Amino acid sequence: MIEFWFEFASTYSYPAALRIEKCAAETGHEIVWRPFLLGPIFREQGWDNSPFNIYAAKGNYMWRDLERICQAESLPFRRPTIFPQNGLLAARVACTDGNGGWLPDFVRAVYSANFADDRDISLPATVATCLTGHVADPEVVMQAASGGGAKARLRANTERAVELGIFGAPSFIVDGELFWGNDRLETALAWKQGD
Amino acid sequence: MIEFWFEFASTYSYPAALRIEKCAAETGHEIVWRPFLLGPIFREQGWDNSPFNIYAAKGNYMWRDLERICQAESLPFRRPTIFPQNGLLAARVACTDGNGGWLPDFVRAVYSANFADDRDISLPATVATCLTGHVADPEVVMQAASGGGAKARLRANTERAVELGIFGAPSFIVDGELFWGNDRLETALAWKQGD
Repeated sequence: MIEFWFEFASTYSYPAALRIEKCAAETGHEIVWRPFLLGPIFREQGWDNSPFNIYAAKGNYMWRDLERICQAESLPFRRPTIFPQNGLLAARVACTDGNGGWLPDFVRAVYSANFADDRDISLPATVATCLTGHVADPEVVMQAASGGGAKARLRANTERAVELGIFGAPSFIVDGELFWGNDRLETALAWKQGD
Repeated sequence: MIEFWFEFASTYSYPAALRIEKCAAETGHEIVWRPFLLGPIFREQGWDNSPFNIYAAKGNYMWRDLERICQAESLPFRRPTIFPQNGLLAARVACTDGNGGWLPDFVRAVYSANFADDRDISLPATVATCLTGHVADPEVVMQAASGGGAKARLRANTERAVELGIFGAPSFIVDGELFWGNDRLETALAWKQGD
């Protein structure tokens, strides 16, 4: 099992989300999808924005690095007009009950909307489009996303992330070991307890 | 050619410094050693300490991650009692004139003193020991390190680092492309202009 902790605004979560199923299949890991929010974690650190916006040199590097990674992975990439985007609604959708079957498709669709198609993922219309074709009735799921259950699950995930020592996304947990960053996906999947 | 930008206090520069010669030999790259100081760059960002000390979750993760990396690379590792250490004197030694022949040996010795042997690298005695066996007379080099030439070269390197968009260590530059982090060494060495 590999826990995949992701936040829809997170740049490096994009290649991770699009790679993880193929990579996990090769090593025989089951993926546990863990949507959470980085905003509350960043605010605890005194940041009211992405560190990539606060620290310009780091941000400049990140955009170029992400472009290189996407090119190497043959993933389409367009730098989003808005960064970071507000992924709250999409994260609540990902936390609705009974998301088992369609969640991976939805997650990939939201990341592609954000980082390949430069669409505003905070809009209900964008999120509904990301559900289309994957669920019987997107409107029913959108309704569920505004319910207390989805909100509580997302809050609990974010609190759990802090307890686990998570401070950024994507993060992976295998056998209790924490790995941070798209570039640690392979290392996480190769991890064996006792290493 | 690969430019290797390093700071003696930097944790992830330790495995990079101990790996780079073997890795660069395999790809036929000549290494240009670029000692610089992160302190002034961090202060520009409003940090008076390492971000690994300021942000506890990130620091906890880094120490565990570094331990795993060193284990995988069969590098000895002991968490330093003092972090970050003051690498100013060692960096000035690395900036003395005529350092061509012995610099790689000295750099490896300083990193090993810091991260394998938990010695205080701010002390002249430690730095002199790191020169022993690699230069004819360590005292002559120590004298040169306190001269204006070495100080000016180190200041110029740090200013150049900022101009190049460097914000952390280790950083690598190949064909004008910047790569940040020990985990990007292989990517940097594989880089071809026009990629």
